[in-house]
Amino acid sequence: MRTVTLYIAMSLDGYIADRNGAVNWLHGHGDDEENIDTYSQFINNMDTVIMGWNTYHQITAELSPKQWVYEDLTSYVITHRELPSTDKIKFVKDNPCEIVRSLKQQQGKGIWICGGSSMIQPLIQDGLIDEYYISVIPTILGSGIRLFGEITNEIKLRLVRTQAYNGIVELIYTCR
Amino acid sequence: MRTVTLYIAMSLDGYIADRNGAVNWLHGHGDDEENIDTYSQFINNMDTVIMGWNTYHQITAELSPKQWVYEDLTSYVITHRELPSTDKIKFVKDNPCEIVRSLKQQQGKGIWICGGSSMIQPLIQDGLIDEYYISVIPTILGSGIRLFGEITNEIKLRLVRTQAYNGIVELIYTCR
Repeated sequence: MRTVTLYIAMSLDGYIADRNGAVNWLHGHGDDEENIDTYSQFINNMDTVIMGWNTYHQITAELSPKQWVYEDLTSYVITHRELPSTDKIKFVKDNPCEIVRSLKQQQGKGIWICGGSSMIQPLIQDGLIDEYYISVIPTILGSGIRLFGEITNEIKLRLVRTQAYNGIVELIYTCR
Repeated sequence: MRTVTLYIAMSLDGYIADRNGAVNWLHGHGDDEENIDTYSQFINNMDTVIMGWNTYHQITAELSPKQWVYEDLTSYVITHRELPSTDKIKFVKDNPCEIVRSLKQQQGKGIWICGGSSMIQPLIQDGLIDEYYISVIPTILGSGIRLFGEITNEIKLRLVRTQAYNGIVELIYTCR
């Protein structure tokens, strides 16, 4: 069955964006240390990404206005807005759990969950995330948009491996 | 000058205790994997521990009622209660920043900060924590008592090292 992976970066205190939604603090020490390109390895196993409207809007309006960054993937953008879908970008109104359950029934490579607590909270709660790939940025941000919201049940994890580069620690878990 | 270290364990979603204050989830995979005794190495460099009332109460009422666990250290317990101090356990009313500033002026080994957000928040905010030693437990707890509260300024960290055993990942940082 297709694997569903939450692949995201957070500060040590659990934020994925500052209080204005900015992500310009998402980097390591910034020394001459070598960066490891773990993203390329990761994305190679994915053919689908699911994100919320805020992430989509930030990518298209701010981070990469000229070119859609996930052209090799099928992107699902969860929004109540009426927007025309294309082959590569599908705007959907369903809740994240319905989309993930439906996609897991189909053939394909991995499914990347790319979003903050409002999108991932129901997925975690329903046990729909198979793999957690969390990059811990070396900073205490102090405030902002949290990765994890409150859920009612504990999810026990199994550490698969860690790797560190340039002050960033990647923590890779599966569900126990 | 004496080093002030926050040495504590948290879940991946940033909790140090569940919503009832319980810490019985603070363990690794629980397989036959070898545990590394990093605590002994750590405590060897400390002669002082500072904790809040809740931590003190939990230790004496629940975790180790018969014997005081930090007999090799001088313990400061921050509380508004009127309790008789001893040579080894001092009940103090001052705010954590005042205590830490005062202790840093004195000769001695390291100072261990052992507490949750209400105690550590002002210390982080005022830049009084020199070293962060965070053990990430392999679980998403879902709710409980958070380690980090909101602070107004970002604290940039430098990763010193990581080590993992039995599913627990230790992240050790200094301030940049």
